[in-house]
Amino acid sequence: MRIGIIGSGNVGGTLGTGFARAGHEVVFGFRDPASPGAASLLGRAPGTRAATVAEAAASSTVLVLATPYEAAEAALAPAGDLSGKILLDATNPIAPGLAGVSSPAGSSGAEEIAKLARGARVVKIFNTVGFEVMANPTFLAGARPATMLYAGDDTSAKEVAHGLAAGLGFDPVDLGPLAAARLLEPFALVWIRLALVCGHGRETAFLYLHR
Amino acid sequence: MRIGIIGSGNVGGTLGTGFARAGHEVVFGFRDPASPGAASLLGRAPGTRAATVAEAAASSTVLVLATPYEAAEAALAPAGDLSGKILLDATNPIAPGLAGVSSPAGSSGAEEIAKLARGARVVKIFNTVGFEVMANPTFLAGARPATMLYAGDDTSAKEVAHGLAAGLGFDPVDLGPLAAARLLEPFALVWIRLALVCGHGRETAFLYLHR
Repeated sequence: MRIGIIGSGNVGGTLGTGFARAGHEVVFGFRDPASPGAASLLGRAPGTRAATVAEAAASSTVLVLATPYEAAEAALAPAGDLSGKILLDATNPIAPGLAGVSSPAGSSGAEEIAKLARGARVVKIFNTVGFEVMANPTFLAGARPATMLYAGDDTSAKEVAHGLAAGLGFDPVDLGPLAAARLLEPFALVWIRLALVCGHGRETAFLYLHR
Repeated sequence: MRIGIIGSGNVGGTLGTGFARAGHEVVFGFRDPASPGAASLLGRAPGTRAATVAEAAASSTVLVLATPYEAAEAALAPAGDLSGKILLDATNPIAPGLAGVSSPAGSSGAEEIAKLARGARVVKIFNTVGFEVMANPTFLAGARPATMLYAGDDTSAKEVAHGLAAGLGFDPVDLGPLAAARLLEPFALVWIRLALVCGHGRETAFLYLHR
């Protein structure tokens, strides 16, 4: 699968590296693909390449949005027409000081991004754990892999998202329509609070128990 | 410990039964303690007794609020002065049709209840799984017990809540101040969606993995 990554921080870098390791063709979209930052990321993510955001978007069937939520609009602008693309939204609208989610009332960050990325098939996923867990969902010896909840309106896009999460080693669980991102964004803040505020550390995750 | 239960549905009944089994003195507060409903509940909860809400509140150091969220104000009104009491809020403000949480913007059901129950030391707990899991937090053979997240502003009240949850067999985890109920109420809806809408069934729960 051809996967473009928009956002080259820890989350984007970890997901791109993991997808490449799983055999996918990964391209990171950069404002300047020849920048030292791009070279540094490619050095840590074997088998990936760098391109402009427009090239990364045009050449990919799946796009991962892994910028800060506040940067999403500017990051998506150069991507061009996203009609039909699968857009995996890993962002989180978090209020300053981790005081809560800043999702708009009666909506979610994911639904707002779906309005920006007109025609794209948006799936909210990869927003509820930190990048360390994305690098190793079975970080806790003897336990089952961490759960990855996701939500979206397009069934085939969700199947792709499910497969990509499983390929990284997660136990993917469908939470329903994209509007359920209104729950997944607060869920992310539960992780953030436990890991960063309550002091459990970043290698923490939830595992979903069901029969 | 003397524990009063306000709300005699599945959650209140299950918690009261579990606390009595753990050796606590449990009294259910009823509008009419001589009603057939009260007798039926006592028959299923050995070692408990029925009283008026006012008597249950006056004689208890810990009160569990296990009514529907919308019924909380009316249910608390006859309880009288709750100053100094530990109030465990197990309610969930859920929009009709399970469409989302109906927590007021910039607040949570728990914070609203704290305003009603002036002087009480409120802990949000027992709201994120269904009563079947409360009856048996180790429902999944071979797995660790389900996690019970809680939030509150009073440290000693949270210690009591933690101990009561552990006594039922949960792995209790502190999420921070009462304002973190703004996260626990959407968290409850994740459970509700998975169990009731997505079809995983009511014996489902999250387990928190950390080192």
